Amino acid sequence: MTPIVSPKNPTVRHAHALLTQHRIRKKSGETVIEGVHLLEALLAKQNTSSISIKQVLLSQSALTHPEVEKLLPLLPSRALLVLDDKLYKEIRTLGDGVDVMAVIDTPKPDFTALGDYAGDCVILDGLQDAGNIGTLLRTACAVGIQTIITTPNTASLWSPKVLRASMGANFSLAIFEQCSFADITATLKTPLYATSSHTDKVIYEHDLTRPMAWVLGHEGQGVSDDFLRLATPIALPQPGGQESLNVGVAGSVCFYEMLRQRSYA
Amino acid sequence: MTPIVSPKNPTVRHAHALLTQHRIRKKSGETVIEGVHLLEALLAKQNTSSISIKQVLLSQSALTHPEVEKLLPLLPSRALLVLDDKLYKEIRTLGDGVDVMAVIDTPKPDFTALGDYAGDCVILDGLQDAGNIGTLLRTACAVGIQTIITTPNTASLWSPKVLRASMGANFSLAIFEQCSFADITATLKTPLYATSSHTDKVIYEHDLTRPMAWVLGHEGQGVSDDFLRLATPIALPQPGGQESLNVGVAGSVCFYEMLRQRSYA
Repeated sequence: MTPIVSPKNPTVRHAHALLTQHRIRKKSGETVIEGVHLLEALLAKQNTSSISIKQVLLSQSALTHPEVEKLLPLLPSRALLVLDDKLYKEIRTLGDGVDVMAVIDTPKPDFTALGDYAGDCVILDGLQDAGNIGTLLRTACAVGIQTIITTPNTASLWSPKVLRASMGANFSLAIFEQCSFADITATLKTPLYATSSHTDKVIYEHDLTRPMAWVLGHEGQGVSDDFLRLATPIALPQPGGQESLNVGVAGSVCFYEMLRQRSYA
Repeated sequence: MTPIVSPKNPTVRHAHALLTQHRIRKKSGETVIEGVHLLEALLAKQNTSSISIKQVLLSQSALTHPEVEKLLPLLPSRALLVLDDKLYKEIRTLGDGVDVMAVIDTPKPDFTALGDYAGDCVILDGLQDAGNIGTLLRTACAVGIQTIITTPNTASLWSPKVLRASMGANFSLAIFEQCSFADITATLKTPLYATSSHTDKVIYEHDLTRPMAWVLGHEGQGVSDDFLRLATPIALPQPGGQESLNVGVAGSVCFYEMLRQRSYA
């Protein structure tokens, strides 16, 4: 296979645009997963996930890398595009690791189409930091929460940065993005809970054994008033006196306390 | 006060070098805290902390910012250096917020000088990511852990990035950096615990009510063999089947389970 050397190749240009520009990802309904571990994670879920791989770009060197060689039989060969090593380095954003990336369709399921939803879920209400979002998806997935809902002012859960931080948790979750407050409250039958510094009742005094919707807010401003009015406030004790916890940590501690009460109490 | 406009001003150059270069921070034994919130956090601890503020650099606009005006009486006026707004923007690394930074001495307490230490602590063994490290310091501080020890292959806990992620938790903690395995085991009398995927005994089945030393390892490679041999392994259950948790989350969940067992069981 003759590797592509021209940065003007339209597929290469498109992949680079998807990697670096939110606007292009939004317009095309596609995103990019970068690195062999994310590709592995996606392929491991191919039977249960609806995400289709549209294009795989890799460097000529990566073509003979043992980790890539294992995956090649699982990929449709017409989707493969081999790039000259130098060209691949020019478009990648992941510095180390194996030089492979894949263009995928971003799933866009409709939350209101569920009619009613009464199971566990996490509502991300305004979160902006890709690391925090990815971490929360990873922990949610680890404890067995399967549904994630986001409000319109929340960063995209399918950006290359979030995908990297979530280590592929996206592929195991049902993710409903950009849902309005009205649509969420119309569809969601699960009671809402939010961490708060305005209550004395600490998390360990709450019964977390029934289905719950955890609302997690913006890194600076916290949960919006609309959700706060509906949510049961829960305190995370901080005897050491720090002002607040990182939102990724706060959510993760809540998810694990829920798991403890249900399976280990 | 006439603001400084020249980027060649030696104090300005030194602050910029401290902000951006680990080598200069190491050589001078100084670091920089950036933004008004970190400066506030440090000033709130001035009575109990041994950290001295050597220089405060701020933009001319920041001089009349209400949050800065509140702090000015608490700062030695000879330490103040006002920069032209344009020059400040050239050296800052924090994009938004109030344009103020301070050069401080990095504390360097000697762990072995303690003789014996038998209290709670966290050992960071090879962690590299500033966000993870800052998050762990913040949570450790929140639950009341006061002592942090790092091994020589761990990133500095006093870099501007870690300080930002820790939200000032550094100022409340006793931080012993770059301690050798031999020095740690000679001084530390607290039993070691490490999360592990090679045990079935989950955290909720362990008694965490006595003093403990939590060992947290490198993001990819985990805890080093030396510490693993000495540590009691603890499993964090992951019924959802994710491979592993973010190390900042894993540590934080452990710290909170310890707090729960001690104060809320």
